[in-house]
Amino acid sequence: MINKLFAALEGSYEEMVDIRRFMHQHPELSFQEYNTAKFIQAFYEKLQIEVKGNVGGNGVVAKVYGKKPGKTVALRADFDALPIQDEKDVPYKSLVPGVMHACGHDGHTATLLVLAKTLNELKEELEGTYVFIHQHAEEYAPGGAISMIEDGCLENVDVIFGTHLWASEPTGTIQYRTGPIMAAADRFEIDIQGKGGHGAQPHKTLDAIVTASQIVLNLQQIVSRRVNPVDAAVVTIGSFTAQNAFNVIADKAKLIGTVRTFNETVQQLIEVEMERIIAGTCSMSGSTYDFRFVRGYPAVVNSEKETVFLTSCAQKVAEVTTIEETEPQMGGEDFAYYLQNVPGTFFFTGAKPLGNDMGYPHHHPKFDIDEKAMLIAAKTLGVAAINIHGND
Amino acid sequence: MINKLFAALEGSYEEMVDIRRFMHQHPELSFQEYNTAKFIQAFYEKLQIEVKGNVGGNGVVAKVYGKKPGKTVALRADFDALPIQDEKDVPYKSLVPGVMHACGHDGHTATLLVLAKTLNELKEELEGTYVFIHQHAEEYAPGGAISMIEDGCLENVDVIFGTHLWASEPTGTIQYRTGPIMAAADRFEIDIQGKGGHGAQPHKTLDAIVTASQIVLNLQQIVSRRVNPVDAAVVTIGSFTAQNAFNVIADKAKLIGTVRTFNETVQQLIEVEMERIIAGTCSMSGSTYDFRFVRGYPAVVNSEKETVFLTSCAQKVAEVTTIEETEPQMGGEDFAYYLQNVPGTFFFTGAKPLGNDMGYPHHHPKFDIDEKAMLIAAKTLGVAAINIHGND
Amino acid sequence: MINKLFAALEGSYEEMVDIRRFMHQHPELSFQEYNTAKFIQAFYEKLQIEVKGNVGGNGVVAKVYGKKPGKTVALRADFDALPIQDEKDVPYKSLVPGVMHACGHDGHTATLLVLAKTLNELKEELEGTYVFIHQHAEEYAPGGAISMIEDGCLENVDVIFGTHLWASEPTGTIQYRTGPIMAAADRFEIDIQGKGGHGAQPHKTLDAIVTASQIVLNLQQIVSRRVNPVDAAVVTIGSFTAQNAFNVIADKAKLIGTVRTFNETVQQLIEVEMERIIAGTCSMSGSTYDFRFVRGYPAVVNSEKETVFLTSCAQKVAEVTTIEETEPQMGGEDFAYYLQNVPGTFFFTGAKPLGNDMGYPHHHPKFDIDEKAMLIAAKTLGVAAINIHGND
Amino acid sequence: MINKLFAALEGSYEEMVDIRRFMHQHPELSFQEYNTAKFIQAFYEKLQIEVKGNVGGNGVVAKVYGKKPGKTVALRADFDALPIQDEKDVPYKSLVPGVMHACGHDGHTATLLVLAKTLNELKEELEGTYVFIHQHAEEYAPGGAISMIEDGCLENVDVIFGTHLWASEPTGTIQYRTGPIMAAADRFEIDIQGKGGHGAQPHKTLDAIVTASQIVLNLQQIVSRRVNPVDAAVVTIGSFTAQNAFNVIADKAKLIGTVRTFNETVQQLIEVEMERIIAGTCSMSGSTYDFRFVRGYPAVVNSEKETVFLTSCAQKVAEVTTIEETEPQMGGEDFAYYLQNVPGTFFFTGAKPLGNDMGYPHHHPKFDIDEKAMLIAAKTLGVAAINIHGND
Repeated sequence: MINKLFAALEGSYEEMVDIRRFMHQHPELSFQEYNTAKFIQAFYEKLQIEVKGNVGGNGVVAKVYGKKPGKTVALRADFDALPIQDEKDVPYKSLVPGVMHACGHDGHTATLLVLAKTLNELKEELEGTYVFIHQHAEEYAPGGAISMIEDGCLENVDVIFGTHLWASEPTGTIQYRTGPIMAAADRFEIDIQGKGGHGAQPHKTLDAIVTASQIVLNLQQIVSRRVNPVDAAVVTIGSFTAQNAFNVIADKAKLIGTVRTFNETVQQLIEVEMERIIAGTCSMSGSTYDFRFVRGYPAVVNSEKETVFLTSCAQKVAEVTTIEETEPQMGGEDFAYYLQNVPGTFFFTGAKPLGNDMGYPHHHPKFDIDEKAMLIAAKTLGVAAINIHGND
Repeated sequence: MINKLFAALEGSYEEMVDIRRFMHQHPELSFQEYNTAKFIQAFYEKLQIEVKGNVGGNGVVAKVYGKKPGKTVALRADFDALPIQDEKDVPYKSLVPGVMHACGHDGHTATLLVLAKTLNELKEELEGTYVFIHQHAEEYAPGGAISMIEDGCLENVDVIFGTHLWASEPTGTIQYRTGPIMAAADRFEIDIQGKGGHGAQPHKTLDAIVTASQIVLNLQQIVSRRVNPVDAAVVTIGSFTAQNAFNVIADKAKLIGTVRTFNETVQQLIEVEMERIIAGTCSMSGSTYDFRFVRGYPAVVNSEKETVFLTSCAQKVAEVTTIEETEPQMGGEDFAYYLQNVPGTFFFTGAKPLGNDMGYPHHHPKFDIDEKAMLIAAKTLGVAAINIHGND
Repeated sequence: MINKLFAALEGSYEEMVDIRRFMHQHPELSFQEYNTAKFIQAFYEKLQIEVKGNVGGNGVVAKVYGKKPGKTVALRADFDALPIQDEKDVPYKSLVPGVMHACGHDGHTATLLVLAKTLNELKEELEGTYVFIHQHAEEYAPGGAISMIEDGCLENVDVIFGTHLWASEPTGTIQYRTGPIMAAADRFEIDIQGKGGHGAQPHKTLDAIVTASQIVLNLQQIVSRRVNPVDAAVVTIGSFTAQNAFNVIADKAKLIGTVRTFNETVQQLIEVEMERIIAGTCSMSGSTYDFRFVRGYPAVVNSEKETVFLTSCAQKVAEVTTIEETEPQMGGEDFAYYLQNVPGTFFFTGAKPLGNDMGYPHHHPKFDIDEKAMLIAAKTLGVAAINIHGND
Repeated sequence: MINKLFAALEGSYEEMVDIRRFMHQHPELSFQEYNTAKFIQAFYEKLQIEVKGNVGGNGVVAKVYGKKPGKTVALRADFDALPIQDEKDVPYKSLVPGVMHACGHDGHTATLLVLAKTLNELKEELEGTYVFIHQHAEEYAPGGAISMIEDGCLENVDVIFGTHLWASEPTGTIQYRTGPIMAAADRFEIDIQGKGGHGAQPHKTLDAIVTASQIVLNLQQIVSRRVNPVDAAVVTIGSFTAQNAFNVIADKAKLIGTVRTFNETVQQLIEVEMERIIAGTCSMSGSTYDFRFVRGYPAVVNSEKETVFLTSCAQKVAEVTTIEETEPQMGGEDFAYYLQNVPGTFFFTGAKPLGNDMGYPHHHPKFDIDEKAMLIAAKTLGVAAINIHGND
């Protein structure tokens, strides 16, 4: 059975690559993935697999029914892209200016589509039900998971698996972790309101760029001085905008960023300390501010039994050369919400491209993956989906 | 003669206001003032006054010849606008989004056009030659003056006068100063190149926003610690841009700003210290930079004899209630270049609007002038132009 | 046997308190603990216990020989104090201005002396050899442990135990951890050399206070931006001195501080990044620096077998109400060196004083301990020392 | 008469040098100049010149009466030293550790003593009365002038002259200025109260060194952004102290510094803005502060008539090669108080030492003067004192 699965997947590897590259050229931003959703839905319709679109937004859910009774197992892939300009020099470079699959979601989708096709071909021999959750909007809170769950995508589901292609680890590596594996990821915006004026008359103004720059630097002290050193935490300002003529003093500046933590106490502490720092900095010049802290995804917490089971599945995949526990990752994932509803596990599939100038971090303008990792991800998820029925 | 001039100007006051308001509604950015230039040229052509367009770019120069021999006296007005969104609530508000006459150049032009028309009407009784220099691009270095001079606008000119409507002083005030009256105004750009990445993985990146924020704050020390406290100097960052998704660490940031000084030594010192600070700050993180310091207009240095003469002219204008020496102003003006070629003087004509919520600084989104000041400026310049022939 | 031990220790509790309070009133700084060493040595001599002074400096080592054969087990207590002014209002307050037992070493010593006396009384019934290591200079790298080891204090020792009275945990708590329990603790000094001068002439100077302040703030970014967020690390500047007349610009400033890490990679990274930041900051003003990074104690790494054994011993002590795994602590300890030579374990004995205004952190001017914790420490160490012989 | 004066002064030049060097070796801090005052008083007593000690503190006032009637003219010299370690390598180096005549007051005193002796020798031929004001405590507000005036030192005085030996200008230069010549000099102290603790546990503390460093840098923005660029102003932190063990987080930090301005409006603005910045910075961490702003000497404002007169006197001194108007100096001087009571002028006497490694700024550890400047100062003051009687 497993051998049949592996052979079928290997035979469809070219298709997997084609799908991934097509998506790479046609990325769509979170909550705007209309064409990608249509593309996924059409894929299933062509194969006459049961499929439903517009699940909780742009989400798509397909189902394959095994002939024999068994558990209902869900597999999930996300499919949105990022507002980053593709700077790679490859034939499948993004065709959309300023938008790019810089996190591997194109690979996730290609993997899941081909795996679904393969399981469908084998369905006469399979137990249980297979739910393929194609989720939109993973990159931008509140994300797509929560609305897809509300719209029923986890109905009757007993267990869920998901993976992230991981460009920092070599292909052949599977990384797992019981308990928290990915951080809570919050989003904040800070608007500074000073007083504009002529660049030559600072004393008649409240310089918003100076105040915002102070805030950027003062916020560094939250991690360096406020948070317990043994608690992991990140405060990043991703965007600073105050665009003016060179000889005009800025009246406004806008900062946008993210906070990452692994527990509620630290998360709460950082929100409070941020406001205190912003308020104090603005009070020095008499500027005012508007601070919005939007809680994003909670931490991804894997259940123990399914995590152990997953490592046993990975051992059956010949291309997997390393199975190791990972440190908790600071990145956020709305896979967290599925795990709040059903047991399961989220793991990393090494996908570091070969070559000298390779292995750019996720969200980098030159990010890419080793496409062979998709086959490993498909095999590992496939074994987990098939073998779960006897796992008690 | 002077009385005739004054009567004629008073009779054309409505026209002056109309011209100014039309221009206020149709502002054009520096070096893009095509329609404004056409408008000015058409004004002269309709009156059959000798006029030449495209002088050193979008500049326009008109000439009126007095019947009797005499000096050649030039009067100058600038006509470009700024990249600022007009936020006033008036019928003559700018119709161009993001562009605005926020410095009074519309008033300068209206003043000079009507003064030229009036002198043309009186030319049979006048001595000498009158050159009306309508200059483009005063707001953006290298400015229009230098190319207009190269294109001949000062040929045979013996003396030059110019004024700036000044919204911080009440209407009725004339401010003069012998020697430096306005600062050297330089422009700089700093591009920071760090290394981008995922917002949750700062240790794999070189955060360009943090580095640029440090530069903003470190640059404050040039004025506070490096420049002799008795030397006036300004270093302003007017623009800070590093626009990204909230969860992406910026690989690039751009700072643009201006430096104001009154002498070459301080100007030179600041350029050197800026580079040292930028280089040192970048070296801390291993980021790189590109720093471009573009010398703008030199200081406006009024000649003594013409400045004294101008104050005597202002005394003849009934509406002038205060004639006072001004402190040097930190703002720059490419009128400086005319004064490097011919003697003359540049002065301020008080133009503060009446009313509670008034007197916004130049370059403010709600900037406006008291239009009656245009009449005062026209009279003062007119007296100077007519009386200069006997001034020896 | 254990019951006899416990009864004897309980009977000597008053003595333990007396010793601790005497030491608290007479604290001595690291490497200057001459009188404290004499006091300890005299204690043993009076009891005719074998004792040797000046071991690797001010260290004192005593030995008690059990009648029966067995392992050689070492117990260690440190006895130096800190340069902190005692601000407590208690009868046993420090009599030495600016010096204070603000870390509980007085309690460690009292505990070990009384335990040694007790084991000596029971020696006819004991197996093996008991080595009491009274170590000087734990607070100040390079510390006393390394030289005491070089001077032979661990000769023939099979296993070592040590504890720290811990004011943040309630009395009755024992905290253990296998592997790294305390951080590597390094020490650094930064001397900034600017150029002094008159406070009114900043432009003729290089202001060392401004440069040093920038370094303090720039160093915050090491933890917030350079170190992997999941790696615990601390960079603290404990001392900033640039003392001058109010109207003199400082030519020199001195920063002293500490770095805490749990692994060599992070330790190395921080040293490199610190130098980069200091060099870059100084280059901005043209100041120079001298940076000395002195590696201190490595991380304290407990061996697994002895740690598990210790928890079994703690269960025998009635007053112990909680035995729990602790998070790794950022504090450093030169107990690390003993564990590089012999197996053993270092644990925390809760010692939080009761009362509202209590539980000041270690090194705080109002730090105090709950003296009853000494009895618990003595019992736990005593059980470990006696029972170790059968532990295989 | 003038020739006799000059010849006598030249004959006493060696004595002047001896006095100055003796004082240089025996400096005393402000308000502690007991021995210096005794030394001065003894000098006059030995010559049987009328002298009074303890005038308004350690001040000394001597009087010489001319035979003929005339004005009463006061000449003033200050005699306190600074808390700076002498780092010069000269035979007359300070013998007092940490105390030094780093501002030339030793030279002022030597000049005035020898001039007084000389005028006393010539008194039979002189008009009017000569008051020699030897003032203590010029370096430390509230200074000695105000209490000496209250104690009567200006009684019957018609006019006053004073000079400062000026190491930045070559010997032979006299610098004068009508109106403000020296700045108002204020003194401030800032005490930061955070919360101390162990260097490895920043999250349990409020790090006073970090907060104080932020204050140092934030205060830079007062001069760079808050004060009108054409107004001269200085904010200097001269002392930063937070001395602790390397592994203790500071609970307290102390900043001391000075503010220099030329008008009350700017002075007031700076005091207000300082408090706003300190309060805002402390509020970010929850630390508290105590801010004391002590107004020091007002600006030194020279009267026009006496300033013009002084330049005419300087012309009579052959060694004077340059007489020039100076820019206003940022340094403060309590000579200001004398000029609030009687007309007069304060001027600078160039005293830059020759040689490569020379001309250190005032208050520098290697500061020195060209002693020949003392003779020039004595001659110029002497001419002014003698010639003032005919100056109407």
